[in-house]
Amino acid sequence: MELISQHKCFNGVQSFYKHESTSTSLPMTFSVYEPPQAKQHKVPVLFYLAGLTCTEETFMIKGGAQRYAAEHGIMLVTMDTSPRRTGIKGAGDSWDFGHGAGFYIDATQEPWSAFFRMESYVVQELRNLIIANFPASADRIGVFGHSMGGHGALTLALKYPEIYKSVSAFAPITAPTEVPWGQKAFSAYLGSNEATWLPHDASALMRTRKTPFPQGILIDQGLEDQFLDEQLKPHQFEAACWAADQPLTLRRHSGYDHNYYFISTFMQDHIAFHSAILNQ
Amino acid sequence: MELISQHKCFNGVQSFYKHESTSTSLPMTFSVYEPPQAKQHKVPVLFYLAGLTCTEETFMIKGGAQRYAAEHGIMLVTMDTSPRRTGIKGAGDSWDFGHGAGFYIDATQEPWSAFFRMESYVVQELRNLIIANFPASADRIGVFGHSMGGHGALTLALKYPEIYKSVSAFAPITAPTEVPWGQKAFSAYLGSNEATWLPHDASALMRTRKTPFPQGILIDQGLEDQFLDEQLKPHQFEAACWAADQPLTLRRHSGYDHNYYFISTFMQDHIAFHSAILNQ
Repeated sequence: MELISQHKCFNGVQSFYKHESTSTSLPMTFSVYEPPQAKQHKVPVLFYLAGLTCTEETFMIKGGAQRYAAEHGIMLVTMDTSPRRTGIKGAGDSWDFGHGAGFYIDATQEPWSAFFRMESYVVQELRNLIIANFPASADRIGVFGHSMGGHGALTLALKYPEIYKSVSAFAPITAPTEVPWGQKAFSAYLGSNEATWLPHDASALMRTRKTPFPQGILIDQGLEDQFLDEQLKPHQFEAACWAADQPLTLRRHSGYDHNYYFISTFMQDHIAFHSAILNQ
Repeated sequence: MELISQHKCFNGVQSFYKHESTSTSLPMTFSVYEPPQAKQHKVPVLFYLAGLTCTEETFMIKGGAQRYAAEHGIMLVTMDTSPRRTGIKGAGDSWDFGHGAGFYIDATQEPWSAFFRMESYVVQELRNLIIANFPASADRIGVFGHSMGGHGALTLALKYPEIYKSVSAFAPITAPTEVPWGQKAFSAYLGSNEATWLPHDASALMRTRKTPFPQGILIDQGLEDQFLDEQLKPHQFEAACWAADQPLTLRRHSGYDHNYYFISTFMQDHIAFHSAILNQ
């Protein structure tokens, strides 16, 4: 684990790291914000999963989350959105597929399966690395994310509720098997058999659960989001939560788009939401 | 004035514009955050001058200022740090000179004087454009900035106290005539006669004034700032303020560096400082 840079921020520490990942067989980069409370004792950890094209810097630069993490004593962790420099032909050709678009799943199809193993990376390898090397409370972990990372947060939380105690999302892809972004990624990473896609679809997963998060799920969605109708479809997830008896606060905000100007506006509410569960 | 993009943010509006500048004879880009109060009535305007290499996006993305501007009802305006695509040989070769390094002065030397007129641009042209096109209160204007932009904020406020009612800075260059960044820029933009540099040196200017800002000046400086000793020298400005009977709050912060992680940490205090003067 190599420290790339470190900056004091809201009386805590903002750090960027690089390490050789066994999950992706390539170097991976991630960033950690340690709140001031972490100097005294272990603190809850909140993993942020970013959207298409983003890196481990995007959220830490644009999200404005450190202030609230410092207030609530929560560690923030975020990572690159895929392995890079895989050498896979075409992996750098699209902004919504390949590099920068790992979709937080483990690919099963060649050539992607050699490197694109972001589910194992986030859920096991990086989590263990954080717990082993930072003052992080192993049993107080939450997850949230944006767009593709909102899909990641919802699906990983539903797959691993024993790990993730709280989950929220900004403008998540909620039904990837039914939308172009998800279909493009899943058909390449998982193959043409659509039955293998469903375990990675938040709405499909939720329909197979019964109140997995009794303390609720928080989702914020802008109504001027240019991807709302074609790619995000939060009503699908809303219906699945209803069927699963899952409490959901889905807030539809007039005028807001898909940008970090939207995300930063509601960041305070998300950190407070996770803190209420993780710090209880 | 061409609208490039617009985003709702903290219930206000974040916009990016491009226009043909008469000051720089080239297209210039700037950004405006209009707080929610601006829908009802004119609000004070706070100009932010960014540092070397930055653009009109940097502060709006990294500063985390919109939340506080929305709370205090203050409009934020920031602009690119120089004209671009000037075609001047060598203007793109250095990160600390030429493009991205306008230093908020009007160059007098060829070839720079044809385009590098950031003082006229910021103080006259852009200010007039904002007052004419946005709900901006012409007599409630403040200025702040970072590093090279901290130099810009201090010098423009001292040159035009009838325009700028409040001034603050993060890690400003306070004595440019005595440091490498300033000497490199001034010798090219203003020529070799160092007497022509002094009217653009905040510490030198302050020594010729008497309490120009009776309500005080706020400066924050990180003590782990890699440029502190060689380029910034806040003690020079502190001494000049002392001699000029100018109230100055210069806060030296242990552990903080030159980054926006430092700036965002103290952004709330700066917006509140300007609001107390501009909204009184």
